[in-house]
Amino acid sequence: MEMERPDTTIQEADNKYPLLQSIDSPADLRRLPQSALPEVCSEIREFLINSLSKNPGHFASSMGAVELTVALHYVFNTPYDRIVWDVGHQAYGHKLLTGRRELFATNRKFGGLSGFPNPEESEYDTFTAGHASNSISAALGMTVASKLQGESPRRNVVAVIGDASISGGLAFEGLNNAAITPNNLLIILNDNDMSIDRNVGALNSYLTHINTTKAYNTFRYRIYKLLKNMHLVGERSKGSILRFNNSIKSLLGKQQNIFEGLNIRYFGPFDGHDIDRVVRVLNDIKEMDGPRILHLRTVKGKGYRPAEKDPAKWHAPGLFDAVSGKRIGDGSASGPSKWQDVFGETLLELARDDKRIVGITAAMSSGTSMNIMQEAMPERVFDVGISEGHAITFAGGLAKEGMRPFAAIYSSFTQRAYDQIIHDVAIQHLPVTLCLDRAGIVGEDGVTHHGVFDMCYLRPIPGIIISSPMDESTLRSLMLTSVSGNYGPFVIRYPRGKGNDAMWREKTPEVIPVGKGHKLRDGKDVAVLSIGPTGRWAVAAADRAAAEGISVAHYDMIFLKPIDEEILREVGERGVPVITIEDGMRDGGLGSAVAEWMADHDYHPEIIRIGVPDRFVAHGKVPELMRECGMDEDAIFSAIKEAASKSAV
Amino acid sequence: MEMERPDTTIQEADNKYPLLQSIDSPADLRRLPQSALPEVCSEIREFLINSLSKNPGHFASSMGAVELTVALHYVFNTPYDRIVWDVGHQAYGHKLLTGRRELFATNRKFGGLSGFPNPEESEYDTFTAGHASNSISAALGMTVASKLQGESPRRNVVAVIGDASISGGLAFEGLNNAAITPNNLLIILNDNDMSIDRNVGALNSYLTHINTTKAYNTFRYRIYKLLKNMHLVGERSKGSILRFNNSIKSLLGKQQNIFEGLNIRYFGPFDGHDIDRVVRVLNDIKEMDGPRILHLRTVKGKGYRPAEKDPAKWHAPGLFDAVSGKRIGDGSASGPSKWQDVFGETLLELARDDKRIVGITAAMSSGTSMNIMQEAMPERVFDVGISEGHAITFAGGLAKEGMRPFAAIYSSFTQRAYDQIIHDVAIQHLPVTLCLDRAGIVGEDGVTHHGVFDMCYLRPIPGIIISSPMDESTLRSLMLTSVSGNYGPFVIRYPRGKGNDAMWREKTPEVIPVGKGHKLRDGKDVAVLSIGPTGRWAVAAADRAAAEGISVAHYDMIFLKPIDEEILREVGERGVPVITIEDGMRDGGLGSAVAEWMADHDYHPEIIRIGVPDRFVAHGKVPELMRECGMDEDAIFSAIKEAASKSAV
Repeated sequence: MEMERPDTTIQEADNKYPLLQSIDSPADLRRLPQSALPEVCSEIREFLINSLSKNPGHFASSMGAVELTVALHYVFNTPYDRIVWDVGHQAYGHKLLTGRRELFATNRKFGGLSGFPNPEESEYDTFTAGHASNSISAALGMTVASKLQGESPRRNVVAVIGDASISGGLAFEGLNNAAITPNNLLIILNDNDMSIDRNVGALNSYLTHINTTKAYNTFRYRIYKLLKNMHLVGERSKGSILRFNNSIKSLLGKQQNIFEGLNIRYFGPFDGHDIDRVVRVLNDIKEMDGPRILHLRTVKGKGYRPAEKDPAKWHAPGLFDAVSGKRIGDGSASGPSKWQDVFGETLLELARDDKRIVGITAAMSSGTSMNIMQEAMPERVFDVGISEGHAITFAGGLAKEGMRPFAAIYSSFTQRAYDQIIHDVAIQHLPVTLCLDRAGIVGEDGVTHHGVFDMCYLRPIPGIIISSPMDESTLRSLMLTSVSGNYGPFVIRYPRGKGNDAMWREKTPEVIPVGKGHKLRDGKDVAVLSIGPTGRWAVAAADRAAAEGISVAHYDMIFLKPIDEEILREVGERGVPVITIEDGMRDGGLGSAVAEWMADHDYHPEIIRIGVPDRFVAHGKVPELMRECGMDEDAIFSAIKEAASKSAV
Repeated sequence: MEMERPDTTIQEADNKYPLLQSIDSPADLRRLPQSALPEVCSEIREFLINSLSKNPGHFASSMGAVELTVALHYVFNTPYDRIVWDVGHQAYGHKLLTGRRELFATNRKFGGLSGFPNPEESEYDTFTAGHASNSISAALGMTVASKLQGESPRRNVVAVIGDASISGGLAFEGLNNAAITPNNLLIILNDNDMSIDRNVGALNSYLTHINTTKAYNTFRYRIYKLLKNMHLVGERSKGSILRFNNSIKSLLGKQQNIFEGLNIRYFGPFDGHDIDRVVRVLNDIKEMDGPRILHLRTVKGKGYRPAEKDPAKWHAPGLFDAVSGKRIGDGSASGPSKWQDVFGETLLELARDDKRIVGITAAMSSGTSMNIMQEAMPERVFDVGISEGHAITFAGGLAKEGMRPFAAIYSSFTQRAYDQIIHDVAIQHLPVTLCLDRAGIVGEDGVTHHGVFDMCYLRPIPGIIISSPMDESTLRSLMLTSVSGNYGPFVIRYPRGKGNDAMWREKTPEVIPVGKGHKLRDGKDVAVLSIGPTGRWAVAAADRAAAEGISVAHYDMIFLKPIDEEILREVGERGVPVITIEDGMRDGGLGSAVAEWMADHDYHPEIIRIGVPDRFVAHGKVPELMRECGMDEDAIFSAIKEAASKSAV
C-alpha cells in the first residue's frame, strides 16, 4: 500500500513529543526503562488530542486504551508476538508506536492510513478489524497455527476485545471453542462499560458485577503469585495449572465466575490506566499455558476531560478545539438532514399511529437515529447490543405475533444476519422492515464498512422486497408502504450522511405501489436506470448530456425486487442502449437484474452496468471513492455519451 | 399446504395405540389424567419405532424428547401458548400430538409432512426450525410481542433448545438479550450431551459440571417451593423475585451458575424422562415472571436399546427392522461413494503430503466425512461445534499464519458465516478452502436445508474463487488445486449423497487451471453451459437432442468465478442460443454471470437460464424437486429443442 507523504506540520510538532519521536518501532519502546512509560502515555494522549482535533477520527476509545497499548508492546515481542485488535477503534496508539506516527496525519484519508488495523498497511496489524467480535476466533486460529508449527520461541497471541464486542455471538463462539482447544491465547478484556453507545446485555451487567467482587479476584491473583514465586505452581504443564485452579478454589471456597465456568482462567479486574500494574500483570501471566482472560477496567476518553464526561459524543467527535474541548463540527448542523434523522423521525411518526410498530437496533441506536423513537417510546425500542443475527430473529418472532418491527442496521453489519434473514424471516414471509443504513460506499471507515454487497446477497431470496429511495420523501413513503400491507420482508437501503431535501418534513408520506419505479425524464437516445440516491448524479449527467443534444430517458427504479417490468419492457421495446447505476457491487445487483430480464424476454439492448467494480474499496471521502470506482456523475455522463454515439452509428 | 392422503396401514395400526388414537389435538391430551401420561409416552415411542423403521427420518432426538413433549402439551395451553422447537429433529412426538398422527406416514415425502416444525403446516408449529440456535431469539420476540399487546390471559412462550444448539452464537445473543428485556420466556434445555455427533465446547463441559452439582440445585428448588407454598416469595412482582434469588443465595452461600450470572433463573437438572417430575416442575414454574431456564437431562434414543447404545448412528438411521434393531440401509453401501467420502478421503491424502493442511468443521464431522481425517490426525482437525461464523474466522486466523485450512460446512449453514467469509477471509485474501457440502437441492430435509443461495451470495465477493466439480475426479483435483497456489478463498461446492464414478480412487488428482472450463461436446445449434453435477443431466439431454439431429455444444464451466471468458467468447462469437444450468437460485448465479458477460462484451445471444426459480422449495426426493423446479434432464432437453427450433427460424 503506498502512502502519500504527509505534510510537515506533524513532524515539526514531534518536538513536542520527545519520547514518542524516538519510537519508530516497538523495539525502541522496549529499550526505555519502565519508569518512562507514564510519560510515553502522556505524549501519546497529547499527540492524539492534537492530531484528531485537526483530522477527525475515533477518539475516545483510543484514549482509553493508551496504557494497555504501551504495556502490550512493552511486554510482548511484537511483531513476532501477535496483537489482534477487535474493531480497532482503540488502535491509534498502536499505530503511533508501530512506525506510523508521521503518517498519522493521513489517517482515514484517501490514499492514507486506514482508520482500523489493516494488515496491508503494517505487519503489526495482524488481522482485519472493523466488524466487532472477531478477535478471539482469529487469534485462536493464530495461536493454534503457531502450536502446530512448533514455533520456538513460543509465539504469544493476544486478542484485545472490548466489553461490548465480547457480547457478540461470534466472540462467544470463539470463547467456547478456545476453552477446549489446546492453545495459549491471552484475551484482554478492555472494559470501559461502553460500546459506541451505552452498553446493554446480561453479560455486561455481569461484568459490572465482577467489579464488585474485585477483592476476591485480587486476593486470588496474589495467592497465585505467591505460589508461583514459591515454585508451588508450575507453568507449561497442565497438571500443575489444574492444581492451581483447584487449590485456589478450595482455598477460597468460592464457585467459578463465567469465564472460569467456561474453563478460561480469569485475572482481574485491574485498573487499565495503572501502567506499572498492567505491565507487571502481563509479565506475570504471559508465559502461562492455556487460554486466559485479563480483565482491565478503563475509562473511555481517559485523559481528556470533555471526552471522559460524554464518551458517546466523543466516540468520533469530528473536528474540535484541543484547548477548549469545543467540538467544531463539519457544518453538519446546517443544511439538509441526515438520512438517519429522516428515518428516525419518520419511524416515530409512524409508530405514533400504528401500535404494531417496534424498533430494533444492534448497538447502533444513535448511529441509525433509532434513539429518536427510543427517547419517546423506550418500551417499544429494543437495542439488543452487538448481535445482528439475534436482532433479525428477534424481529421475526415479533412479526410472527403480529408486530411490525423496523430493524435498523448498517448494511455491512447486516452481513452478520444473512442466514437469519433467509431462515427466520423470509421463509415465513414475515413482515419485518429492514432498514439498511450506510448502504453503498460509506467513505472514511473504508473497506470493512462499505455497504456494497446487500443488493447482491438479498436479491436471490424469494419473496423479499428490496427498495432504495432517491430522496427523503421516498424514504418516508417506503417506510409507510412497508407497514401498509402484508409484504413480508421489506428492505429499504439508504446511505450514510446528508440527504438533499431540506423541506422533507413538509411532505406527507404516501403509500406507493410496490415494484413500481418513476420515469424522471423521457428521451430517445439512451435509457438510464438508477436505484437509490445514485439517481441524483444520473439526473445531473442527463442534464449535461441534454445540453449536448443527447436525449436521455431516466427512470428511478426505487425497487430492485420486484423490479418494474413495465419500465424494462418500455426500454426493451425501444431498443436503445441501457445504462444501469447503483451504489453496490456491479455483479449481482440492478445491472444483473436488468441483463437477466432482457435475456429472459428476448430483448437485446446494449447494457452498460455502472456500480462498484469487482475489488475491495479502501477509504477516503465518498466523492473520491465514487470517482475511483467510475460511478460518479462524470462516469455516468461519459457512459451516456459513449452509448449515444454507438447507438447513433 | 395440501397433503396427500396417507395409505391406510398406519390407521389400522392405530389400534395398537389406544390412547394415542384418541388424541387428535393437545386438548384431548389435557383431558387425560396425569397417570395416563407414561402410557401415552410408551405409545408415542412405539409409534415412532414402527413408523420410522418403514419411512426413515430423524429418530434418536425425537425418542429422547417424548416425555418433555407430552409434558409441555399437557401443562401448557397450546396453541395459545407457544412452543418454539430449536432445530426440530426432536419434534416428531409434537407432530403426533398435534393432529398429524395419520399424516405421519408422509413424513419428509414430496407433498407430505415436513420433517421439521413448519408454520405452513400447523398452527402448533410456531416458527421455522431447521438451522440450530434460533429458538431463544424467536421465542423472545414472541413473548415480548405478547407483553406489548397486553394479552390476557398471559401467553406463555417456551423455547426448547438442545445442549448443542445452545452453544451457537445466536443462542448466546438471545440469552444475553433475554436476560435484560422484560419477558416471561421459559427456556427448556434438552440436554442429551449430543449434537448429531458427540458434543464439544466449553459450555458443554460446563453443563456436565452442573450435573455434578445437582444436589445444590435440587436443594435450592425445594427451598423455592417451600417458600412459595408459604407465600414468602410472590410471583409477578420483580421485587419478590429478586428477594427470592438473594435469599436463596445467602441461604446457600454459593455463587451463581452461568445462567444466573446472566440473570436468568435456573432450575435443574432434572431427569427429563420422569414425566411426573417434569409435569410438576413445569406447573411450578410456568407462572413465574421473567426469563427462566429449565435444564432436563435426557437420553438420545431413549426407549430403544440400539439407539441408546449408539445415538450418533441412530440420529437418522434410515430403514431398520423394528424388532431386531438391524439397520437395513437404502443400498448406500453398494455402488459409488458419497461425495462426502470422496472429500474426506482426499483431504486425508492431501494432508499426509502437506503439513499446512488442517480440517475444520462445525458439528458436521460425520456428515461431511471430516471424521476420516479426524480419526487419522486428530490434532489437525477442529470440530468447533455449532458455530459456523467462528469456524470461518478461526480458519482465517490459521491461514494468516501460513496454514491451509479446509472448512467443510453445509451450504445452507454457511449462510451463518457470510460476513466472516467477507470480513475475516476475503478482504485479506487468505487461502481458506471452503468446501460447501450439500450444495444445491438436498431433498428430504427441505426448505431450510437446500444449499441454493451460495453461488449468488459468494459471487460478488472480490477475489474469491468459486468452483463446482461435475465428477469425483474434478472434486479431488479442485481440492489439490486450492492448495497449489496462493489463491485466497477457494470455494468448492458439491451435493449431498452419491456420486457416479466408482473408480475415482484410481485417478490421481491433478492441479487444474483456475478459471478454465472444459468443452465436453462440440456442436453448432445450441450451446449448453453447466456447472457442477448438473452437467450430467445436460450430457444426457444433449445425447437425446443429438439423437433428434440437434447439434449441441456442451461446456462444463467448473468455475463460476473467475468465469472462463474464452468459452464465453467462443459461444458469443457463434451467436447460437445459450442455455445455462446450475443447481442454485437462478437469479444471481451462473446464468446471471453469463448474461452480464455477454452484455458487457456486446454479444447478444438468446440466453435461457435454468436453475431454482424464485421461490422456496419444499421437501421430497431430489429428482422430484428437480422436476418441480424445471431443472431435470427433461427440462434441459426441452430447452435445447426449443432453442434449436427458434434458432433455426
